[in-house]
Amino acid sequence: MVDNTHQVKHQQISPEWGPTAWAHLSTVRAQSPLIQCITNFVSMDLMANTLLSAGASPAMIHSLREIPDFTPCADALCVNVGTLTAEWLPAMRAAAEAAGRAGKPWVLDPVAAGASRFRLEACRELVGMRPTVVRGNGSEILALAYASVGPSKGVDSSHQSTDAVEAAKSLAKSSGCIVAVSGAVDFVTDGQRVVGAQNGVAMMQKITATGCSVTALIAAFVAIDPLHAFEATATALSIFGIAGEIGMDMAKGPASLRVHLIDSLYGLDQDTVVRRVNIISFA
Amino acid sequence: MVDNTHQVKHQQISPEWGPTAWAHLSTVRAQSPLIQCITNFVSMDLMANTLLSAGASPAMIHSLREIPDFTPCADALCVNVGTLTAEWLPAMRAAAEAAGRAGKPWVLDPVAAGASRFRLEACRELVGMRPTVVRGNGSEILALAYASVGPSKGVDSSHQSTDAVEAAKSLAKSSGCIVAVSGAVDFVTDGQRVVGAQNGVAMMQKITATGCSVTALIAAFVAIDPLHAFEATATALSIFGIAGEIGMDMAKGPASLRVHLIDSLYGLDQDTVVRRVNIISFA
Amino acid sequence: MVDNTHQVKHQQISPEWGPTAWAHLSTVRAQSPLIQCITNFVSMDLMANTLLSAGASPAMIHSLREIPDFTPCADALCVNVGTLTAEWLPAMRAAAEAAGRAGKPWVLDPVAAGASRFRLEACRELVGMRPTVVRGNGSEILALAYASVGPSKGVDSSHQSTDAVEAAKSLAKSSGCIVAVSGAVDFVTDGQRVVGAQNGVAMMQKITATGCSVTALIAAFVAIDPLHAFEATATALSIFGIAGEIGMDMAKGPASLRVHLIDSLYGLDQDTVVRRVNIISFA
Repeated sequence: MVDNTHQVKHQQISPEWGPTAWAHLSTVRAQSPLIQCITNFVSMDLMANTLLSAGASPAMIHSLREIPDFTPCADALCVNVGTLTAEWLPAMRAAAEAAGRAGKPWVLDPVAAGASRFRLEACRELVGMRPTVVRGNGSEILALAYASVGPSKGVDSSHQSTDAVEAAKSLAKSSGCIVAVSGAVDFVTDGQRVVGAQNGVAMMQKITATGCSVTALIAAFVAIDPLHAFEATATALSIFGIAGEIGMDMAKGPASLRVHLIDSLYGLDQDTVVRRVNIISFA
Repeated sequence: MVDNTHQVKHQQISPEWGPTAWAHLSTVRAQSPLIQCITNFVSMDLMANTLLSAGASPAMIHSLREIPDFTPCADALCVNVGTLTAEWLPAMRAAAEAAGRAGKPWVLDPVAAGASRFRLEACRELVGMRPTVVRGNGSEILALAYASVGPSKGVDSSHQSTDAVEAAKSLAKSSGCIVAVSGAVDFVTDGQRVVGAQNGVAMMQKITATGCSVTALIAAFVAIDPLHAFEATATALSIFGIAGEIGMDMAKGPASLRVHLIDSLYGLDQDTVVRRVNIISFA
Repeated sequence: MVDNTHQVKHQQISPEWGPTAWAHLSTVRAQSPLIQCITNFVSMDLMANTLLSAGASPAMIHSLREIPDFTPCADALCVNVGTLTAEWLPAMRAAAEAAGRAGKPWVLDPVAAGASRFRLEACRELVGMRPTVVRGNGSEILALAYASVGPSKGVDSSHQSTDAVEAAKSLAKSSGCIVAVSGAVDFVTDGQRVVGAQNGVAMMQKITATGCSVTALIAAFVAIDPLHAFEATATALSIFGIAGEIGMDMAKGPASLRVHLIDSLYGLDQDTVVRRVNIISFA
């Protein structure tokens, strides 16, 4: 059961999540939005393949020299700080600014935000540039919301996402961004509304860059429905989770799951999406 | 049927493409040419695995400090501008120069050549250093030939390769390079001759870095037959396409195709190659 | 049969390698040690997935700005020079120093050590900072031990690992490190003892970054048993080899082997490990 009472002032009718998710995915396939990704080295391969399998068009372009020409032509921007160095930060800033000026949505993945003061400051500066969506795991969102440094387990989350929902609401309110927290359930909030995308399987966390890749998928979904970034974030998380669920039926471990997840994302049909989407609202 | 009439002045006997392709592949396996790759971050994994599966020896070495020692010892060089920044360009130039001085073939992949003025200028400068082969998709070859900036869909081609054949011939004539245009059919031209390698499957374009990887395979094939770079380019494209065709029989989507493609490339035997190679000449 | 007579002065009882290997793997799974990896671009994906599948927690963090905060919190450090440039070397030095100061083990992979003077000097400088373990192929260990430049086949080894055992013993004695030489048999020496880990399959050498990844696995094993780095190195090599052997039963080529290897590493159980570990001692 979906309780949408708290959503009344934001939208009169609760979204029918299954059809909405299918509308988003099929529109990505039809329009093939161009997604500029400034992302960490570990994630580039899986992120590009995730976007391609969903029907989007990835472009891993991060040179300061290209941003003025390229970023305004992209349909959305994904910034991921995974392998951050001081040299990459100016390009992230410049692209975020260019996307903002061009009215294009952009999405931030604050990987391991609390791993160092340098990283935390960089992430907070980027949040201050008002991304459309911030997606992280519980540890990352807590670090961002409360400005706390202290390595948790690398890029893994050592906090259940439920613990981080309050932090996410607080961050969403203070920043004006949609905030998504990945975990056993993926939560999405705009500071008022909270929905939980309950698709996915635990083994996805044993594959590097699945979190990074779903952030890029969020960028693709927001690109084709920028006026409903909250809904597009939730459906992207759900769709990626469904691909993982179907992949899990064939997987024998994390590496075959990765293969089957991408194959499944590519092959998803309307019936499967509508039937499997599991997004609920919280008061 | 292969029409080689236009080739008469270049070579007396038309190549028997099947046996030629097998001779190239089996020589790569026997000699294991050392291929230096200065390539984008997205492609490094698949490119290295493509070269290994074909029997070549990849070396992803791009430091300016190593090029004087290393590049002359490599059997060929592959330069790919996918994730270009101003910092990488000097190494690309230096390696191209070192390869040229040492008489080693080198191959250029002008990824997303038209994505920005910076990138287009870099690509045109590199073309001016006379690579043995330039391989791109239709959009990239058009951008290079006509010096036009304007993002198409990221690194995807939004032009059919047939549209780009005239551009490729023009570029080949002006640059002195072999030019290959990937697409539904892969065309290869030296400015006079044009052949079409008709192997491959459409889903290969849904896997990131397949184009980058076939460019590296071209480098390996040219490395072991440098006096016949035109033929080696065509056979490399055909062999990679055949691996994709065989892989497609087992694939359930882009990610499993990627796995089966590399497995198939590793396992190709003489009968399969000779029987499946599909290269035709155009007047 | 295991001949441990030469080990008497180092340890009274020869390790029961099977149970020791299982103890190491199950402890990694239980403790999930945080492994900082400063590694080449080609290997990042497979290395992170190898660590995740073994139960460890990878963090690809290489910024000079983060090392003071982050490295002391990691349980071990893996430094790999595969795509070395002058810009990356200071971070490698700084992280090695930070790990040393914090009493954390660190492991060096001197990829292609002899490919250039620049690279050889960098590797020798890092060896001088006394890593806990150095793991390379035969060519790399020979280049390091005898300070010889001359490209062999890229990052492949053109020397059988048996040829390099004497070089490894010499390097271990002069450096104070455990030295491991990968090949048909993987040898491990502390300068006195020599053991051979005889697991694995030849096709693993046709997958890029398997060597890099097993070095990271060594870091994870040493992280949870730092007082027995010699044993942890041998068991990590054996465990990775066993995963390859099991994977090979399902593989049709290098790419499917890569998938099945990671799946198998994730799924290894006590019986399989104890039964398959094949480590022998040499006088």
